[in-house]
Amino acid sequence: MNLINSLKWRYATKRMNGVKVPKEKVDQILEAIRLAPTSIGIQPFRVFVVESEAMRNKIHAGACQQPQVLEGSHLLVFAARESLTNSEVDGYINHIAATRKMPVEGLADFRKMVESVQPMPADSYFAWAARQAYIALGFGLVTAASLEVDSTPMEGFNNAMMDEVLGLKEKGLRSAVLMALGYRDPKSDYLVNAAKVRKPISELFDTL
Amino acid sequence: MNLINSLKWRYATKRMNGVKVPKEKVDQILEAIRLAPTSIGIQPFRVFVVESEAMRNKIHAGACQQPQVLEGSHLLVFAARESLTNSEVDGYINHIAATRKMPVEGLADFRKMVESVQPMPADSYFAWAARQAYIALGFGLVTAASLEVDSTPMEGFNNAMMDEVLGLKEKGLRSAVLMALGYRDPKSDYLVNAAKVRKPISELFDTL
Repeated sequence: MNLINSLKWRYATKRMNGVKVPKEKVDQILEAIRLAPTSIGIQPFRVFVVESEAMRNKIHAGACQQPQVLEGSHLLVFAARESLTNSEVDGYINHIAATRKMPVEGLADFRKMVESVQPMPADSYFAWAARQAYIALGFGLVTAASLEVDSTPMEGFNNAMMDEVLGLKEKGLRSAVLMALGYRDPKSDYLVNAAKVRKPISELFDTL
Repeated sequence: MNLINSLKWRYATKRMNGVKVPKEKVDQILEAIRLAPTSIGIQPFRVFVVESEAMRNKIHAGACQQPQVLEGSHLLVFAARESLTNSEVDGYINHIAATRKMPVEGLADFRKMVESVQPMPADSYFAWAARQAYIALGFGLVTAASLEVDSTPMEGFNNAMMDEVLGLKEKGLRSAVLMALGYRDPKSDYLVNAAKVRKPISELFDTL
């Protein structure tokens, strides 16, 4: 399947069949998320890969009662940061220097650019960080489709409860968006055979 | 190249060589953007595909002086909506009914769900719409890489000026993010041979 055909094949799967997505496919999806670009390269989020049935039950009961939480085999919770700490800046700059085998001093101007986002208030920082997480979500969704793994992006959940269940507040994180991984269940999912609805090209694009 | 290798090959290209990306590749990238999922399927954004040199010059002069605006062959401006009008809701529901060959009445509950986002104030609606646009940006970036087309996502531009240059305000849109398309210029781009910097798996993911 070429990539466009994979994207036509994918849909927001409503019901999954409980079959486990193999580790090597999950790993590729996570690798795509890891490789996604973010503004100034800071990757201001963390992804909780919830596999245990106990934790998926807890999330389903308290924060998101959608069936994919239980019927999928992995639930990815994208949690974005509320701020950029000094130690994160230090860690990031040192990591670049080590990866690119260059002196930290050579990154002084770049460091200033990174530090320039620090004064943002928590709500603004989170909003910006969440947008970066959504790029990574896109990378994960495309990669899942390319591997014929079904996935469902989900915004409809109780963020406060999710933050509580995962203990995000004390980590300086807030839940942003979910992605369930699994396999469609043609017997129970009314959307399996539904035609994909998208705006025609003329309503989405303007060529200038 | 498999998809992960394509994602390792891609990077935020700083300098491009002016070579034009062929129409069939641009069309595939736009198709991926069109196929990207959005919350309640509403696709609350529009993408301006800026190809004309005159318009790219205007944007470069007034809103975004990054070289890729001129050196790339296409600049995609993702502009997200500020509100959801009644006529948009009508159009969307009718489009689903026509695509899926079902009566509009069968969509009454879904229509209520769509209408539930209408009371959002403009700033909140735009923030939510922009997040949806970022998923589509992710789809575009992955697809470009899979076609060996370089791309650069860009947030660093003057949004007010961009909105003015493209006349977005009167269309109920605000600029959200840019994506330049073109081909890397190894002679002038200092990043061409730089190792990719990403957080290690242990710093980005938690398995629960």
